[in-house]
Amino acid sequence: MHKLVLIRHGQSQWNLENRFSGWADVDITEQGAAEAREAGELLVQAGYHFDVAHTSVLKRAVRTLWHVQDAMDLMWIPVLTEWRLNERHYGALTGLNKAETAARYGEDQVKIWRRSYDIPPPALERDANPSLRDPRYAELDPKLIPDTECLKDTVARVMPYWNEVLAPAIGAGQRVLLVAHGNSIRALVKYLDGISDQDIVELNIPNGVPLVYEFDDNMKPLRHYYLGDADAIAAKMAAVANQGKAR
Amino acid sequence: MHKLVLIRHGQSQWNLENRFSGWADVDITEQGAAEAREAGELLVQAGYHFDVAHTSVLKRAVRTLWHVQDAMDLMWIPVLTEWRLNERHYGALTGLNKAETAARYGEDQVKIWRRSYDIPPPALERDANPSLRDPRYAELDPKLIPDTECLKDTVARVMPYWNEVLAPAIGAGQRVLLVAHGNSIRALVKYLDGISDQDIVELNIPNGVPLVYEFDDNMKPLRHYYLGDADAIAAKMAAVANQGKAR
Repeated sequence: MHKLVLIRHGQSQWNLENRFSGWADVDITEQGAAEAREAGELLVQAGYHFDVAHTSVLKRAVRTLWHVQDAMDLMWIPVLTEWRLNERHYGALTGLNKAETAARYGEDQVKIWRRSYDIPPPALERDANPSLRDPRYAELDPKLIPDTECLKDTVARVMPYWNEVLAPAIGAGQRVLLVAHGNSIRALVKYLDGISDQDIVELNIPNGVPLVYEFDDNMKPLRHYYLGDADAIAAKMAAVANQGKAR
Repeated sequence: MHKLVLIRHGQSQWNLENRFSGWADVDITEQGAAEAREAGELLVQAGYHFDVAHTSVLKRAVRTLWHVQDAMDLMWIPVLTEWRLNERHYGALTGLNKAETAARYGEDQVKIWRRSYDIPPPALERDANPSLRDPRYAELDPKLIPDTECLKDTVARVMPYWNEVLAPAIGAGQRVLLVAHGNSIRALVKYLDGISDQDIVELNIPNGVPLVYEFDDNMKPLRHYYLGDADAIAAKMAAVANQGKAR
Protein backbone atom coordinates (compact mmCIF):
# COMPACT_ATOMS: atom_id res chain seq x y z
CA MET A 1 0.00 0.00 0.00
CA HIS A 2 1.36 3.39 -1.04
CA LYS A 3 0.62 6.80 0.43
CA LEU A 4 0.83 10.40 -0.70
CA VAL A 5 0.38 13.34 1.66
CA LEU A 6 -0.91 16.60 0.16
CA ILE A 7 -0.84 19.91 2.06
CA ARG A 8 -2.20 23.22 0.84
CA HIS A 9 0.05 26.06 2.05
CA GLY A 10 -0.86 27.75 5.34
CA GLN A 11 -2.83 31.00 5.35
CA SER A 12 -1.16 33.58 3.09
CA GLN A 13 -1.27 37.35 3.45
CA TRP A 14 -3.69 37.49 0.53
CA ASN A 15 -5.82 34.66 1.96
CA LEU A 16 -6.11 36.92 5.02
CA GLU A 17 -6.95 39.94 2.84
CA ASN A 18 -9.28 37.79 0.70
CA ARG A 19 -7.46 38.64 -2.53
CA PHE A 20 -6.91 36.47 -5.60
CA SER A 21 -3.28 35.27 -5.48
CA GLY A 22 -2.60 33.03 -8.45
CA TRP A 23 1.04 33.32 -9.45
CA ALA A 24 1.70 36.40 -7.27
CA ASP A 25 4.42 35.40 -4.82
CA VAL A 26 2.66 36.18 -1.56
CA ASP A 27 4.13 34.96 1.74
CA ILE A 28 2.30 33.15 4.57
CA THR A 29 1.09 34.88 7.74
CA GLU A 30 1.94 33.99 11.35
CA GLN A 31 -1.28 31.96 11.40
CA GLY A 32 -0.17 30.22 8.21
CA ALA A 33 3.16 29.36 9.82
CA ALA A 34 1.34 27.97 12.87
CA GLU A 35 -0.92 25.87 10.62
CA ALA A 36 2.15 24.51 8.85
CA ARG A 37 3.91 23.58 12.08
CA GLU A 38 0.72 21.96 13.37
CA ALA A 39 0.49 19.92 10.17
CA GLY A 40 4.06 18.75 10.76
CA GLU A 41 3.29 17.82 14.35
CA LEU A 42 0.17 15.88 13.29
CA LEU A 43 2.29 13.93 10.81
CA VAL A 44 4.91 13.14 13.46
CA GLN A 45 2.22 11.96 15.90
CA ALA A 46 0.72 9.75 13.20
CA GLY A 47 4.14 8.20 12.51
CA TYR A 48 4.75 9.63 9.05
CA HIS A 49 8.17 9.87 7.43
CA PHE A 50 9.03 11.22 4.00
CA ASP A 51 11.83 10.41 1.59
CA VAL A 52 11.28 13.43 -0.61
CA ALA A 53 9.12 16.56 -0.83
CA HIS A 54 7.76 18.34 -3.89
CA THR A 55 6.47 21.88 -3.91
CA SER A 56 5.80 24.82 -6.24
CA VAL A 57 8.12 27.74 -6.97
CA LEU A 58 5.93 30.08 -4.89
CA LYS A 59 7.16 31.05 -1.43
CA ARG A 60 3.88 30.44 0.42
CA ALA A 61 4.24 26.75 -0.51
CA VAL A 62 8.00 26.57 0.04
CA ARG A 63 7.83 28.24 3.46
CA THR A 64 4.93 26.02 4.50
CA LEU A 65 7.05 23.02 3.53
CA TRP A 66 10.01 24.40 5.50
CA HIS A 67 7.85 24.63 8.63
CA VAL A 68 6.59 21.09 8.12
CA GLN A 69 10.14 19.82 7.59
CA ASP A 70 11.30 21.66 10.69
CA ALA A 71 8.48 20.27 12.86
CA MET A 72 9.20 16.74 11.55
CA ASP A 73 13.02 17.05 11.90
CA LEU A 74 13.26 16.35 8.16
CA MET A 75 15.16 19.43 7.02
CA TRP A 76 17.66 17.14 5.27
CA ILE A 77 15.32 15.41 2.79
CA PRO A 78 15.51 16.33 -0.91
CA VAL A 79 13.05 19.02 -2.01
CA LEU A 80 12.02 19.46 -5.63
CA THR A 81 10.48 22.81 -6.65
CA GLU A 82 8.31 22.71 -9.74
CA TRP A 83 6.34 25.43 -11.53
CA ARG A 84 3.67 22.88 -12.61
CA LEU A 85 2.57 22.72 -8.96
CA ASN A 86 1.92 26.48 -8.83
CA GLU A 87 -1.49 27.86 -7.98
CA ARG A 88 -3.90 28.37 -10.88
CA HIS A 89 -3.05 31.62 -12.68
CA TYR A 90 -5.75 34.16 -11.86
CA GLY A 91 -5.14 36.42 -14.86
CA ALA A 92 -6.37 40.00 -14.54
CA LEU A 93 -8.07 39.19 -11.21
CA THR A 94 -4.67 38.71 -9.53
CA GLY A 95 -4.45 40.98 -6.50
CA LEU A 96 -8.15 41.94 -6.47
CA ASN A 97 -10.27 41.50 -3.35
CA LYS A 98 -12.72 38.62 -3.77
CA ALA A 99 -15.64 40.26 -1.93
CA GLU A 100 -15.20 43.57 -3.79
CA THR A 101 -15.03 41.67 -7.06
CA ALA A 102 -18.26 39.85 -6.09
CA ALA A 103 -19.96 43.16 -5.22
CA ARG A 104 -18.96 44.53 -8.61
CA TYR A 105 -19.52 41.54 -10.90
CA GLY A 106 -21.91 39.46 -8.79
CA GLU A 107 -21.31 36.38 -6.66
CA ASP A 108 -22.33 34.06 -9.48
CA GLN A 109 -19.72 35.51 -11.83
CA VAL A 110 -17.04 35.27 -9.15
CA LYS A 111 -17.96 31.67 -8.41
CA ILE A 112 -17.58 30.92 -12.13
CA TRP A 113 -14.14 32.57 -12.18
CA ARG A 114 -13.11 30.84 -8.95
CA ARG A 115 -14.48 27.40 -9.45
CA SER A 116 -15.82 26.65 -12.93
CA TYR A 117 -13.86 23.96 -14.69
CA ASP A 118 -13.34 25.52 -18.09
CA ILE A 119 -14.08 29.27 -17.94
CA PRO A 120 -10.91 31.26 -17.17
CA PRO A 121 -10.87 34.70 -15.56
CA PRO A 122 -10.02 37.64 -17.85
CA ALA A 123 -6.44 37.31 -19.09
CA LEU A 124 -3.48 39.56 -18.35
CA GLU A 125 -2.19 41.40 -21.37
CA ARG A 126 0.80 39.40 -22.56
CA ASP A 127 3.28 42.26 -22.28
CA ALA A 128 2.04 43.04 -18.76
CA ASN A 129 2.58 39.47 -17.49
CA PRO A 130 5.34 39.77 -14.86
CA SER A 131 6.11 36.03 -15.03
CA LEU A 132 7.75 36.59 -18.42
CA ARG A 133 10.44 38.62 -16.66
CA ASP A 134 10.70 36.48 -13.50
CA PRO A 135 14.00 34.57 -13.20
CA ARG A 136 12.18 31.52 -11.80
CA TYR A 137 10.56 30.97 -15.20
CA ALA A 138 13.58 32.01 -17.28
CA GLU A 139 14.36 28.44 -18.35
CA LEU A 140 10.76 27.75 -19.33
CA ASP A 141 9.38 27.94 -22.87
CA PRO A 142 7.42 31.23 -22.72
CA LYS A 143 4.52 29.44 -24.43
CA LEU A 144 4.03 27.49 -21.19
CA ILE A 145 3.59 30.66 -19.11
CA PRO A 146 -0.15 31.42 -18.88
CA ASP A 147 -1.85 34.83 -18.89
CA THR A 148 -4.85 33.24 -17.13
CA GLU A 149 -6.04 29.72 -16.36
CA CYS A 150 -9.26 27.85 -15.71
CA LEU A 151 -8.98 24.68 -13.64
CA LYS A 152 -8.88 22.64 -16.84
CA ASP A 153 -5.69 24.49 -17.81
CA THR A 154 -4.21 23.78 -14.39
CA VAL A 155 -5.10 20.09 -14.74
CA ALA A 156 -3.31 20.08 -18.10
CA ARG A 157 -0.02 21.17 -16.53
CA VAL A 158 -0.32 19.27 -13.22
CA MET A 159 -1.07 15.88 -14.81
CA PRO A 160 2.25 15.48 -16.67
CA TYR A 161 4.03 16.03 -13.36
CA TRP A 162 1.80 13.44 -11.72
CA ASN A 163 2.23 10.91 -14.49
CA GLU A 164 5.93 11.40 -15.14
CA VAL A 165 7.32 12.23 -11.70
CA LEU A 166 5.01 11.76 -8.72
CA ALA A 167 3.11 8.55 -9.52
CA PRO A 168 6.24 6.62 -10.60
CA ALA A 169 8.07 7.73 -7.43
CA ILE A 170 5.18 6.76 -5.14
CA GLY A 171 4.69 3.49 -7.01
CA ALA A 172 8.39 2.71 -6.54
CA GLY A 173 7.94 3.01 -2.76
CA GLN A 174 9.02 6.59 -2.12
CA ARG A 175 7.17 8.32 0.71
CA VAL A 176 6.21 11.61 -0.92
CA LEU A 177 5.05 14.89 0.64
CA LEU A 178 3.49 17.40 -1.74
CA VAL A 179 2.94 20.99 -0.56
CA ALA A 180 1.01 23.01 -3.12
CA HIS A 181 -2.01 25.25 -3.64
CA GLY A 182 -5.81 25.15 -3.53
CA ASN A 183 -6.22 24.66 -7.27
CA SER A 184 -3.14 22.58 -8.10
CA ILE A 185 -4.35 20.18 -5.38
CA ARG A 186 -7.95 20.36 -6.69
CA ALA A 187 -6.59 19.47 -10.13
CA LEU A 188 -4.88 16.39 -8.76
CA VAL A 189 -7.80 15.36 -6.54
CA LYS A 190 -10.22 15.69 -9.48
CA TYR A 191 -8.15 13.14 -11.38
CA LEU A 192 -7.49 10.79 -8.43
CA ASP A 193 -11.14 10.61 -7.37
CA GLY A 194 -12.68 10.89 -10.85
CA ILE A 195 -14.69 13.97 -9.85
CA SER A 196 -16.87 15.38 -12.63
CA ASP A 197 -16.39 18.84 -14.16
CA GLN A 198 -19.60 19.87 -12.38
CA ASP A 199 -18.88 18.44 -8.92
CA ILE A 200 -15.34 19.83 -8.69
CA VAL A 201 -16.91 23.31 -8.35
CA GLU A 202 -17.97 22.46 -4.80
CA LEU A 203 -14.63 21.00 -3.65
CA ASN A 204 -12.60 23.23 -1.32
CA ILE A 205 -9.17 22.44 0.12
CA PRO A 206 -8.43 23.81 3.62
CA ASN A 207 -5.12 25.56 4.34
CA GLY A 208 -2.39 23.66 6.15
CA VAL A 209 -4.14 20.33 6.76
CA PRO A 210 -2.50 17.01 5.73
CA LEU A 211 -4.64 15.15 3.17
CA VAL A 212 -3.63 11.50 2.88
CA TYR A 213 -4.22 9.39 -0.23
CA GLU A 214 -3.72 5.63 -0.16
CA PHE A 215 -3.05 3.64 -3.36
CA ASP A 216 -2.86 -0.01 -4.29
CA ASP A 217 0.17 -1.44 -6.10
CA ASN A 218 -1.23 -0.25 -9.43
CA MET A 219 -1.50 3.31 -8.04
CA LYS A 220 -5.28 3.04 -7.96
CA PRO A 221 -6.60 5.34 -5.18
CA LEU A 222 -8.14 3.32 -2.36
CA ARG A 223 -9.23 6.03 0.05
CA HIS A 224 -8.32 9.45 1.36
CA TYR A 225 -8.73 11.34 4.60
CA TYR A 226 -7.57 14.48 6.39
CA LEU A 227 -5.45 14.30 9.54
CA GLY A 228 -6.64 16.43 12.45
CA ASP A 229 -9.84 17.61 14.07
CA ALA A 230 -12.80 17.00 11.72
CA ASP A 231 -14.87 19.99 12.91
CA ALA A 232 -11.97 22.40 12.56
CA ILE A 233 -11.28 21.07 9.05
CA ALA A 234 -14.94 21.44 8.03
CA ALA A 235 -14.92 25.03 9.29
CA LYS A 236 -11.78 25.77 7.26
CA MET A 237 -13.32 24.28 4.10
CA ALA A 238 -16.48 26.34 4.55
CA ALA A 239 -14.38 29.47 5.00
CA VAL A 240 -12.64 28.81 1.67
CA ALA A 241 -16.02 28.26 -0.03
CA ASN A 242 -17.35 31.55 1.38
CA GLN A 243 -14.47 33.75 0.22
CA GLY A 244 -16.32 34.66 -2.98
CA LYS A 245 -19.38 36.08 -1.18
CA ALA A 246 -19.99 39.81 -1.42
CA ARG A 247 -20.32 39.93 2.45
CA MET B 1 34.81 33.42 -15.70
CA HIS B 2 33.02 31.12 -13.23
CA LYS B 3 32.21 31.75 -9.59
CA LEU B 4 31.39 29.65 -6.53
CA VAL B 5 30.13 31.13 -3.27
CA LEU B 6 30.88 29.22 -0.06
CA ILE B 7 29.23 30.02 3.26
CA ARG B 8 29.94 28.37 6.58
CA HIS B 9 26.70 28.07 8.60
CA GLY B 10 25.85 30.86 11.03
CA GLN B 11 26.71 30.53 14.72
CA SER B 12 25.30 27.28 16.11
CA GLN B 13 24.20 26.59 19.67
CA TRP B 14 27.36 24.55 20.18
CA ASN B 15 29.55 27.24 18.58
CA LEU B 16 28.09 29.51 21.28
CA GLU B 17 28.75 26.91 23.98
CA ASN B 18 32.21 26.20 22.49
CA ARG B 19 31.49 22.48 22.07
CA PHE B 20 32.70 20.10 19.36
CA SER B 21 29.78 19.52 16.98
CA GLY B 22 30.87 17.23 14.15
CA TRP B 23 27.89 15.20 12.98
CA ALA B 24 25.65 16.17 15.93
CA ASP B 25 22.62 17.94 14.46
CA VAL B 26 22.81 21.21 16.36
CA ASP B 27 20.68 24.18 15.25
CA ILE B 28 21.81 27.78 14.73
CA THR B 29 21.28 30.56 17.29
CA GLU B 30 19.49 33.88 16.77
CA GLN B 31 22.92 35.39 16.07
CA GLY B 32 23.55 32.65 13.53
CA ALA B 33 20.25 33.42 11.82
CA ALA B 34 21.16 37.13 11.71
CA GLU B 35 24.57 36.27 10.21
CA ALA B 36 22.86 34.16 7.56
CA ARG B 37 20.39 36.89 6.63
CA GLU B 38 23.23 39.42 6.49
CA ALA B 39 25.16 37.10 4.16
CA GLY B 40 22.10 36.97 1.91
CA GLU B 41 21.76 40.75 1.93
CA LEU B 42 25.45 41.18 1.08
CA LEU B 43 24.99 38.85 -1.88
CA VAL B 44 21.95 40.78 -3.09
CA GLN B 45 23.80 44.09 -2.81
CA ALA B 46 26.73 42.63 -4.77
CA GLY B 47 24.35 41.48 -7.51
CA TYR B 48 24.64 37.73 -7.02
CA HIS B 49 22.09 35.22 -8.29
CA PHE B 50 22.18 31.44 -7.92
CA ASP B 51 20.77 28.67 -10.08
CA VAL B 52 21.19 25.96 -7.46
CA ALA B 53 22.31 25.51 -3.86
CA HIS B 54 24.12 22.59 -2.26
CA THR B 55 24.30 21.92 1.47
CA SER B 56 24.89 19.18 4.01
CA VAL B 57 22.26 17.05 5.73
CA LEU B 58 22.81 18.92 9.03
CA LYS B 59 20.22 21.49 10.05
CA ARG B 60 22.66 24.28 10.98
CA ALA B 61 23.69 24.34 7.32
CA VAL B 62 20.19 23.85 5.88
CA ARG B 63 18.67 26.57 8.05
CA THR B 64 21.50 28.96 7.22
CA LEU B 65 20.80 28.30 3.55
CA TRP B 66 17.06 28.91 4.10
CA HIS B 67 17.81 32.32 5.61
CA VAL B 68 20.12 33.19 2.71
CA GLN B 69 17.49 32.06 0.20
CA ASP B 70 14.84 34.07 2.00
CA ALA B 71 16.98 37.25 2.09
CA MET B 72 17.77 36.82 -1.63
CA ASP B 73 14.17 35.98 -2.65
CA LEU B 74 15.48 32.67 -4.01
CA MET B 75 13.32 30.22 -2.05
CA TRP B 76 12.37 28.55 -5.34
CA ILE B 77 15.83 27.41 -6.52
CA PRO B 78 16.72 23.71 -6.36
CA VAL B 79 18.55 22.63 -3.20
CA LEU B 80 20.64 19.48 -3.04
CA THR B 81 21.42 18.05 0.42
CA GLU B 82 24.50 15.83 0.58
CA TRP B 83 26.12 13.97 3.49
CA ARG B 84 29.59 14.44 1.90
CA LEU B 85 29.33 18.15 2.76
CA ASN B 86 28.80 17.41 6.48
CA GLU B 87 31.16 18.78 9.11
CA ARG B 88 34.19 16.64 9.95
CA HIS B 89 33.15 13.85 12.33
CA TYR B 90 34.56 14.67 15.77
CA GLY B 91 34.46 11.12 17.14
CA ALA B 92 34.41 10.75 20.91
CA LEU B 93 34.97 14.51 21.32
CA THR B 94 31.48 15.26 19.94
CA GLY B 95 29.57 17.36 22.47
CA LEU B 96 32.58 18.14 24.69
CA ASN B 97 33.48 21.72 25.56
CA LYS B 98 36.63 22.82 23.73
CA ALA B 99 38.08 24.87 26.58
CA GLU B 100 37.44 22.12 29.15
CA THR B 101 38.99 19.60 26.80
CA ALA B 102 42.01 21.90 26.46
CA ALA B 103 42.29 22.28 30.23
CA ARG B 104 42.23 18.50 30.58
CA TYR B 105 44.39 17.37 27.64
CA GLY B 106 46.37 20.56 26.95
CA GLU B 107 45.93 23.20 24.26
CA ASP B 108 48.50 21.54 22.02
CA GLN B 109 46.61 18.26 22.02
CA VAL B 110 43.31 20.03 21.29
CA LYS B 111 44.89 21.96 18.43
CA ILE B 112 46.11 18.64 16.99
CA TRP B 113 42.60 17.18 17.25
CA ARG B 114 41.00 20.33 15.84
CA ARG B 115 43.38 21.21 13.08
CA SER B 116 46.03 18.57 12.30
CA TYR B 117 45.66 17.16 8.83
CA ASP B 118 45.97 13.46 9.50
CA ILE B 119 45.50 12.76 13.23
CA PRO B 120 41.84 12.06 14.06
CA PRO B 121 40.25 12.56 17.47
CA PRO B 122 39.51 9.39 19.50
CA ALA B 123 36.83 7.33 17.70
CA LEU B 124 33.31 6.58 18.84
CA GLU B 125 32.71 2.92 19.57
CA ARG B 126 31.05 1.55 16.46
CA ASP B 127 27.92 0.32 18.24
CA ALA B 128 27.55 3.69 19.99
CA ASN B 129 27.64 5.68 16.73
CA PRO B 130 24.16 7.23 16.45
CA SER B 131 24.58 7.91 12.71
CA LEU B 132 24.17 4.16 12.09
CA ARG B 133 20.56 4.47 13.27
CA ASP B 134 19.83 7.90 11.76
CA PRO B 135 17.33 7.79 8.85
CA ARG B 136 19.28 10.44 6.95
CA TYR B 137 22.10 7.91 6.46
CA ALA B 138 19.87 4.86 5.98
CA GLU B 139 20.54 4.65 2.23
CA LEU B 140 24.29 4.96 2.73
CA ASP B 141 26.73 2.04 2.79
CA PRO B 142 27.51 1.81 6.54
CA LYS B 143 31.20 1.54 5.66
CA LEU B 144 31.04 5.19 4.59
CA ILE B 145 29.78 6.35 8.01
CA PRO B 146 32.82 7.39 10.08
CA ASP B 147 33.40 6.92 13.81
CA THR B 148 35.87 9.82 13.73
CA GLU B 149 37.67 11.83 11.05
CA CYS B 150 40.84 13.85 10.58
CA LEU B 151 40.73 16.56 7.92
CA LYS B 152 42.36 14.14 5.47
CA ASP B 153 39.34 11.85 5.86
CA THR B 154 36.99 14.78 5.24
CA VAL B 155 38.96 15.73 2.12
CA ALA B 156 38.57 12.13 0.90
CA ARG B 157 34.76 12.36 0.98
CA VAL B 158 34.39 16.02 -0.09
CA MET B 159 36.59 15.69 -3.18
CA PRO B 160 34.40 13.17 -5.06
CA TYR B 161 31.47 15.56 -4.64
CA TRP B 162 33.60 18.42 -5.94
CA ASN B 163 34.93 16.44 -8.90
CA GLU B 164 31.71 14.67 -9.87
CA VAL B 165 29.01 17.22 -9.03
CA LEU B 166 30.16 20.74 -8.13
CA ALA B 167 33.04 21.41 -10.53
CA PRO B 168 31.17 20.09 -13.62
CA ALA B 169 28.11 22.19 -12.72
CA ILE B 170 30.13 25.37 -12.19
CA GLY B 171 32.16 24.70 -15.33
CA ALA B 172 28.91 24.31 -17.28
CA GLY B 173 27.87 27.81 -16.21
CA GLN B 174 25.68 27.11 -13.19
CA ARG B 175 25.83 29.75 -10.48
CA VAL B 176 26.33 27.61 -7.38
CA LEU B 177 25.90 28.47 -3.70
CA LEU B 178 27.43 26.01 -1.23
CA VAL B 179 26.49 26.25 2.45
CA ALA B 180 28.55 23.89 4.56
CA HIS B 181 30.80 23.64 7.62
CA GLY B 182 34.17 24.82 8.92
CA ASN B 183 36.00 21.64 7.98
CA SER B 184 34.15 20.59 4.83
CA ILE B 185 34.93 24.09 3.52
CA ARG B 186 38.56 23.85 4.74
CA ALA B 187 38.82 20.55 2.87
CA LEU B 188 37.67 22.19 -0.35
CA VAL B 189 39.78 25.32 0.13
CA LYS B 190 42.87 23.21 0.79
CA TYR B 191 42.43 21.60 -2.60
CA LEU B 192 41.47 24.77 -4.50
CA ASP B 193 44.38 26.82 -3.18
CA GLY B 194 46.91 23.98 -2.97
CA ILE B 195 47.48 24.61 0.74
CA SER B 196 50.03 22.28 2.36
CA ASP B 197 49.17 19.79 5.11
CA GLN B 198 51.12 22.04 7.51
CA ASP B 199 49.64 25.39 6.52
CA ILE B 200 46.00 24.23 6.56
CA VAL B 201 46.32 24.02 10.38
CA GLU B 202 46.23 27.81 10.58
CA LEU B 203 43.24 28.35 8.24
CA ASN B 204 39.97 29.29 9.95
CA ILE B 205 36.63 29.87 8.24
CA PRO B 206 34.33 32.51 9.82
CA ASN B 207 30.64 31.75 10.38
CA GLY B 208 28.10 33.17 7.96
CA VAL B 209 30.37 35.15 5.61
CA PRO B 210 30.22 34.66 1.80
CA LEU B 211 33.56 33.42 0.44
CA VAL B 212 33.78 33.87 -3.34
CA TYR B 213 36.02 31.77 -5.60
CA GLU B 214 36.61 32.74 -9.21
CA PHE B 215 37.71 30.16 -11.80
CA ASP B 216 38.89 30.28 -15.39
CA ASP B 217 37.25 28.17 -18.09
CA ASN B 218 39.35 25.16 -17.05
CA MET B 219 38.08 25.53 -13.47
CA LYS B 220 41.51 26.74 -12.33
CA PRO B 221 41.04 29.01 -9.28
CA LEU B 222 41.97 32.61 -10.13
CA ARG B 223 41.32 34.37 -6.84
CA HIS B 224 39.09 34.36 -3.79
CA TYR B 225 37.76 36.94 -1.35
CA TYR B 226 35.22 37.40 1.41
CA LEU B 227 32.24 39.74 1.02
CA GLY B 228 31.68 42.16 3.89
CA ASP B 229 33.63 44.23 6.39
CA ALA B 230 37.28 43.06 6.50
CA ASP B 231 37.85 43.92 10.18
CA ALA B 232 34.71 42.10 11.30
CA ILE B 233 35.72 39.04 9.25
CA ALA B 234 39.24 39.05 10.72
CA ALA B 235 37.77 39.20 14.23
CA LYS B 236 35.50 36.25 13.45
CA MET B 237 38.41 34.19 12.10
CA ALA B 238 40.48 34.93 15.21
CA ALA B 239 37.56 33.88 17.40
CA VAL B 240 37.38 30.53 15.61
CA ALA B 241 41.14 30.05 16.04
CA ASN B 242 40.91 30.81 19.77
CA GLN B 243 38.13 28.33 20.56
CA GLY B 244 40.70 25.67 21.53
CA LYS B 245 42.34 27.82 24.23
CA ALA B 246 41.91 26.71 27.86
CA ARG B 247 40.71 30.30 28.66
